[in-house]
Amino acid sequence: MTIAAGSLSRIAVASQLGDEINARIAAHASQPVLRPLGPDELPWRLAEAADVLLVRPLASIWRSAPADPPPGWPGPVKLVMSVSAGIDFFPSWLLDAPAVTCARGVNAAPIAEYVLAAILNRAKRFDSVQYRRPEEFRQTELQGLHGQTLGLAGYGAIGQEVARRAHAFGMRILALRRSAWDADPGVEAVRDIAELAARSDHLVLALPATAQTRHIVDAAVLARAKPGLHLVNIARGALVDQEALREALDRGWVGAATLDVTDPEPLEEGHWLYTHKAVRLTPHISWSSGSDSGRLTEKLLDNFGRFVRGDALLDVVDPARGY
Amino acid sequence: MTIAAGSLSRIAVASQLGDEINARIAAHASQPVLRPLGPDELPWRLAEAADVLLVRPLASIWRSAPADPPPGWPGPVKLVMSVSAGIDFFPSWLLDAPAVTCARGVNAAPIAEYVLAAILNRAKRFDSVQYRRPEEFRQTELQGLHGQTLGLAGYGAIGQEVARRAHAFGMRILALRRSAWDADPGVEAVRDIAELAARSDHLVLALPATAQTRHIVDAAVLARAKPGLHLVNIARGALVDQEALREALDRGWVGAATLDVTDPEPLEEGHWLYTHKAVRLTPHISWSSGSDSGRLTEKLLDNFGRFVRGDALLDVVDPARGY
Repeated sequence: MTIAAGSLSRIAVASQLGDEINARIAAHASQPVLRPLGPDELPWRLAEAADVLLVRPLASIWRSAPADPPPGWPGPVKLVMSVSAGIDFFPSWLLDAPAVTCARGVNAAPIAEYVLAAILNRAKRFDSVQYRRPEEFRQTELQGLHGQTLGLAGYGAIGQEVARRAHAFGMRILALRRSAWDADPGVEAVRDIAELAARSDHLVLALPATAQTRHIVDAAVLARAKPGLHLVNIARGALVDQEALREALDRGWVGAATLDVTDPEPLEEGHWLYTHKAVRLTPHISWSSGSDSGRLTEKLLDNFGRFVRGDALLDVVDPARGY
Repeated sequence: MTIAAGSLSRIAVASQLGDEINARIAAHASQPVLRPLGPDELPWRLAEAADVLLVRPLASIWRSAPADPPPGWPGPVKLVMSVSAGIDFFPSWLLDAPAVTCARGVNAAPIAEYVLAAILNRAKRFDSVQYRRPEEFRQTELQGLHGQTLGLAGYGAIGQEVARRAHAFGMRILALRRSAWDADPGVEAVRDIAELAARSDHLVLALPATAQTRHIVDAAVLARAKPGLHLVNIARGALVDQEALREALDRGWVGAATLDVTDPEPLEEGHWLYTHKAVRLTPHISWSSGSDSGRLTEKLLDNFGRFVRGDALLDVVDPARGY
């Protein structure tokens, strides 16, 4: 879709982002007027004065956002650009702006690395190999990825980056995708999540959180899972019925879970996921890498330039679809 | 090289291997006479009656083997086939048999998986991420492999399998190889181990243990290492001066070490490597996978068939080169 800055003399940008990205936007040839927002400033209060909003999933702001659109929204706002890939963190009215873009795919490479780290860690038993005494020499057998099956629930940017790396290890790859598609060579399309769980050694969740995907991994799916299944969730905690997962782990239907996301985040003090032996829990950091801010900045600047010129925007959110 | 069974009416095979492989060899069309050896039987005592010896690195036998060739060696023995990739475990006279083959490359895939597991484990901080309480949410930053440099000391079957997988992660790859070579696309040849250590984020040792490679990673190499270097050794413990490594880890010249091999094996009770915080130690199991015995058996049968037919043998050991 296109939405153009049009006849604006100077574009007003209100930004929740950091100094570095703000400076790069402010340096754009169109000479926008940049208004940085403090961590407690409500971006929609500025809507009357901003053409573009740059937003991030800041808990202090968005958790307490009104459910209904604020008076006058969206006013002059033509474009909302989110630095997150998912938009489930934001109130639904924010997505009613003329155009909303997200940072889809920006972190696909580091997230795919995290997924392979999780898969290899399980296969190579890095958490359980004991070698602290001479008697423990060569007492463990490891697994090989060659011939194991990887199930991808979701085959967007992240799923595809995972598949590309998993191919190099000779894994069999199955993928579930919402829309009809011609599967890539070496990727077999499957019909539903239950079949995916039943056939996979490692099941990776790389789906957006929507009303349709909430608890897509539920008790019924877990009960049919391939024995010893390793569940990897790098998407959103709400995709998994956590209580059903607990039972599946405790009964041994599922062998292990690597969870970078939970519902809610952070988990409350003392939550069982913090200490379950079969769970590797990380605090929503799989996107993190030493060099991601560069990719994100380039993507934002690219889309900002498209807005200024009136060219088609990339990674436009479809509010009806939910991502 | 070729060495043929020739006019032998039935080939006599003495084997240190397991029942399953022995049965496969015995079932060969040439109808060999198979003599399984118990764990305490000295294979060279049988040399007078065996055309082929199948050997494995069995400590109870080879640790106490005589340094000099036993009287009458090699007698009728025409071929020694080892199921290990390295031949440093065997006495040098064993390699004076007319032909010696090893299981080079059989375990390259699972070993390459182990190496990538080690690299990803370090980059994704799976050993150090803390998330046991709400306050620890998002307090850690991970590394990305994209743009990191992988140094391969040795570019045989294992080095090449590691490189193929590392390419899928966008790593820069450097390799040191003993013999002159045209580097593969995307692999830069480097001159010496010191340069390799100085330029790599992860340095993987995939060299045979020979007189020339003993302590190839010594104090001088470690002192020039790239700060934070991660050393991965899946080859032989003798490649590393372990005391120099200890100092390099303690001084912070080297960031971490993942060691599947040590010198000696197993380590004596209470050895510092068992408990050093910057060391991941595994008990020489990187070759292990759910399906390796199949590959090994096929390789042995292939070479046995070549011997029977008088065709060129594969993976022949060069005693002068030491592997």
